[in-house]
Amino acid sequence: MTLLIKLGGSAGIDNSLTVDDLAQLWPEKRIVMVHGANAELDAYIRSQGREPAHVTSSRGQVSRYSDEQTMSDMMAIYAGQTNKRIVELFQQRGVNAVGISAMDGGTARGRRKDTIRIVEDGKPKVLRGDHAGTIEEIDTTLIDLLLDNGYLPVLTPPAVSHEGVAINVDGDKLALDLATALGAEALVFLSNTAGLLRDVDDPGSLIRHIDTSDDADVERALEAAAGRMQKKVESGVGAVRAGIGTVVFADARVGQPVSRALAGHGTVLTTGVLQEV
Amino acid sequence: MTLLIKLGGSAGIDNSLTVDDLAQLWPEKRIVMVHGANAELDAYIRSQGREPAHVTSSRGQVSRYSDEQTMSDMMAIYAGQTNKRIVELFQQRGVNAVGISAMDGGTARGRRKDTIRIVEDGKPKVLRGDHAGTIEEIDTTLIDLLLDNGYLPVLTPPAVSHEGVAINVDGDKLALDLATALGAEALVFLSNTAGLLRDVDDPGSLIRHIDTSDDADVERALEAAAGRMQKKVESGVGAVRAGIGTVVFADARVGQPVSRALAGHGTVLTTGVLQEV
Repeated sequence: MTLLIKLGGSAGIDNSLTVDDLAQLWPEKRIVMVHGANAELDAYIRSQGREPAHVTSSRGQVSRYSDEQTMSDMMAIYAGQTNKRIVELFQQRGVNAVGISAMDGGTARGRRKDTIRIVEDGKPKVLRGDHAGTIEEIDTTLIDLLLDNGYLPVLTPPAVSHEGVAINVDGDKLALDLATALGAEALVFLSNTAGLLRDVDDPGSLIRHIDTSDDADVERALEAAAGRMQKKVESGVGAVRAGIGTVVFADARVGQPVSRALAGHGTVLTTGVLQEV
Repeated sequence: MTLLIKLGGSAGIDNSLTVDDLAQLWPEKRIVMVHGANAELDAYIRSQGREPAHVTSSRGQVSRYSDEQTMSDMMAIYAGQTNKRIVELFQQRGVNAVGISAMDGGTARGRRKDTIRIVEDGKPKVLRGDHAGTIEEIDTTLIDLLLDNGYLPVLTPPAVSHEGVAINVDGDKLALDLATALGAEALVFLSNTAGLLRDVDDPGSLIRHIDTSDDADVERALEAAAGRMQKKVESGVGAVRAGIGTVVFADARVGQPVSRALAGHGTVLTTGVLQEV
């Protein structure tokens, strides 16, 4: 069974909780980890006396402005500091992890959008020099090679354009595309929330299950979701429909977060009624 | 033929010159690259308003003080920013590079010296919390796996202790130990000098050849070398004696630096008289 774990990069997450749990599940389960480092990247940029730059697209989506400097920062924090600290946590627990970016081995290739239409001070504007990108191809050769030889792969953005330039891709999308390409049986998104909540301020309002074969159920879930979470739910529904048996949105801040998620704690997306995972 | 290239991390080196050259030699030659990022790390630490910290050992050796923060910085700059920019240069030239640290896959393991005896203001002192380390074991499994499957490995410190903790190891020593473990035919050290000079201020005083089987020749070379270069020459002599056919100290700042080094431009260390490499 291949398990894909996406560990979010928000503040307040202790990565060792997830690594502890995965070290118990490994090597019985084939595990691939994808991680972010959003909060660490912001902290890093501020430590240099700069401010994280964001742009608002003409469709209203807010994203990180990915100029050349930001790509270097991402390499440093995502692929360097955070990735190697996670590898270290695994090595301390006897798991022979290998940390790579999605650039390495051409694992995730895509299209760079160097021109983006943004809205600044209410006015439309065209911004050049961006390194935002969309994943178009996943090559699982390197990951399969690592798994087949007893290494636990730990991946993170950036990915690489068809021309070989580093591109900033969404970590959730990377996890999703990898899970699909690897034929993963389960995909667990761990973040700093208990799952999808009807009311973000009420942990008791957790949506326990979404039946992806029931359009009305999916519609209700999407209505409850807001902002980034909506994109996550859409992706999760798409993943189950594409053949990944189970997608779970669960809490990274508790003990054994992966085992708990697989036992149904969180928001579980499956086709049909909820069963034991 | 396996070729190990150590690309130094001093200021004034344009990494694309080396990558351009290696992209021409690949895949006819099996190539492994090891790189440093010393100047970039210093610049990075200063960009955060801090100063690079160094300690002087009781034996008079000056080295970077490797506390927890420095290890995070090293991960960011060595294994993150510099490593992924080099991978990007390879990807742009159609070479499917994979960048890893020596921690990944337990490639270089060693002993952490968490207590070091230093001299501060002329007084002996014991400093704790350091992450300096010595490589004791090389595991080439991951590198062989990458090479056998068409990937060019790009490695950099840190390495990992037997307990799984990141340790700061010397990049030259990493290159040397890897070259020996891989049975490399040639090891090329590229840096911001033309090679070993009798007079550091006179490029014309280049020592063209050191016959490692001639003790007097080695002695003369060691007398000419100063500081860090002395350690490099000692290591190079040891490498040739350990079975690496050729070791070259050459200039990273010229076109085709690797091909030039292999053609004899630089300081060439071999057993016996100088021959065409």
